[in-house]
Amino acid sequence: MSQTIAERLQDLGLELPHAPEAVGAYVPVLRTGNLIMTSGQLPTIGKELTFQGKVGQQLTKEDGRNAAQLACLNALAQLDKAAGGLENIVRIIRLEGFVQSADGFTEQPYVMNGASELLIHLFGDHGRHTRFAVGCNELPLNAAVELALWAEVA
Amino acid sequence: MSQTIAERLQDLGLELPHAPEAVGAYVPVLRTGNLIMTSGQLPTIGKELTFQGKVGQQLTKEDGRNAAQLACLNALAQLDKAAGGLENIVRIIRLEGFVQSADGFTEQPYVMNGASELLIHLFGDHGRHTRFAVGCNELPLNAAVELALWAEVA
Amino acid sequence: MSQTIAERLQDLGLELPHAPEAVGAYVPVLRTGNLIMTSGQLPTIGKELTFQGKVGQQLTKEDGRNAAQLACLNALAQLDKAAGGLENIVRIIRLEGFVQSADGFTEQPYVMNGASELLIHLFGDHGRHTRFAVGCNELPLNAAVELALWAEVA
Repeated sequence: MSQTIAERLQDLGLELPHAPEAVGAYVPVLRTGNLIMTSGQLPTIGKELTFQGKVGQQLTKEDGRNAAQLACLNALAQLDKAAGGLENIVRIIRLEGFVQSADGFTEQPYVMNGASELLIHLFGDHGRHTRFAVGCNELPLNAAVELALWAEVA
Repeated sequence: MSQTIAERLQDLGLELPHAPEAVGAYVPVLRTGNLIMTSGQLPTIGKELTFQGKVGQQLTKEDGRNAAQLACLNALAQLDKAAGGLENIVRIIRLEGFVQSADGFTEQPYVMNGASELLIHLFGDHGRHTRFAVGCNELPLNAAVELALWAEVA
Repeated sequence: MSQTIAERLQDLGLELPHAPEAVGAYVPVLRTGNLIMTSGQLPTIGKELTFQGKVGQQLTKEDGRNAAQLACLNALAQLDKAAGGLENIVRIIRLEGFVQSADGFTEQPYVMNGASELLIHLFGDHGRHTRFAVGCNELPLNAAVELALWAEVA
């Protein structure tokens, strides 16, 4: 693909945020061998948690989808920092997705597609990852979603 | 062991299904280095989700156990596809297991043994994996279980 | 750091337990390449599950924090066994943390800091790991927490 990842983000009206700090006694990202893994990322903008509540109750599934896209941007910012630029990512290999779900809400795949489709848009075939998407009764700080990414570098 | 894995499956009255398609914007399996990881697999037969409901409520723990075995067969079909045959699997290394649980149901290990015991039956000592087994209030499409496998290839 | 890990544990009034047996058809720990991963560990002392109940309901968040520290000690005992001594651990790379949470309890990060802070105390910068911390409605045997560790060895 001839466009840079930054240009593809811009086409979507998005930009890479600053990589969020950890909200606990851990690190937000690290590299082991040729793998980079992030900690669980929340749908924050700066220090503000933008999507709070249970999907299927206080939040619609569209809200959940947007929350997943936002958390994914934060995870990408972590990968960018650890890899010295997203262009150094060979492939996204895994998304671990948790959706704070109201009882009876079973569309976790739809919600996590907000993240997965962004990855495929940005990285093309190299963004095609494995994932799990599950529901939780509660997530940290009442966040709508939490997700972590694993990527491969050269 | 002198029997093939296909023969051991047959002895149990089971056979490897076609590897299910992803139900979202991701891939069902990939290889990185000598690791193969699947996406979360559901207890489906073809396109039909066979075990729906919460274990401990609509479903018994025996149902849950059968659901885990079925989801595990789907995960094995993914490994088979990615490895070019289950005989190429050196070892199963991890099972990530989620059980859609009614309030008060705490036998997730019993449920996930439906998958774990199948793995050990098929692969012997090379099927002895690590795992987590946890409860979720909701899973995609009201599935009883979701599980992912990691395996090592040569 | 000049102290041994055993000495640092002792300073905290803690000691490494015997590595718990698996509570199902799996193994508690294994090594693949230079990675060691544990199965999900519970807050047990010997065969007794010490912290039962939902955090935010039967258990306070301080209880949850102590449960996470205890489960982490069990995970460290597994790493010790697999690595032939904790001194052979190059780095702790990941903590997968599940907190059995009452509805409305959203301080999973506080709870999991009971594990994360122990890791950093023992391993210094080499204990700085990635993690996810999420809530579950139910966990095996009504355990307050379940957690798994991944570590790198030379």
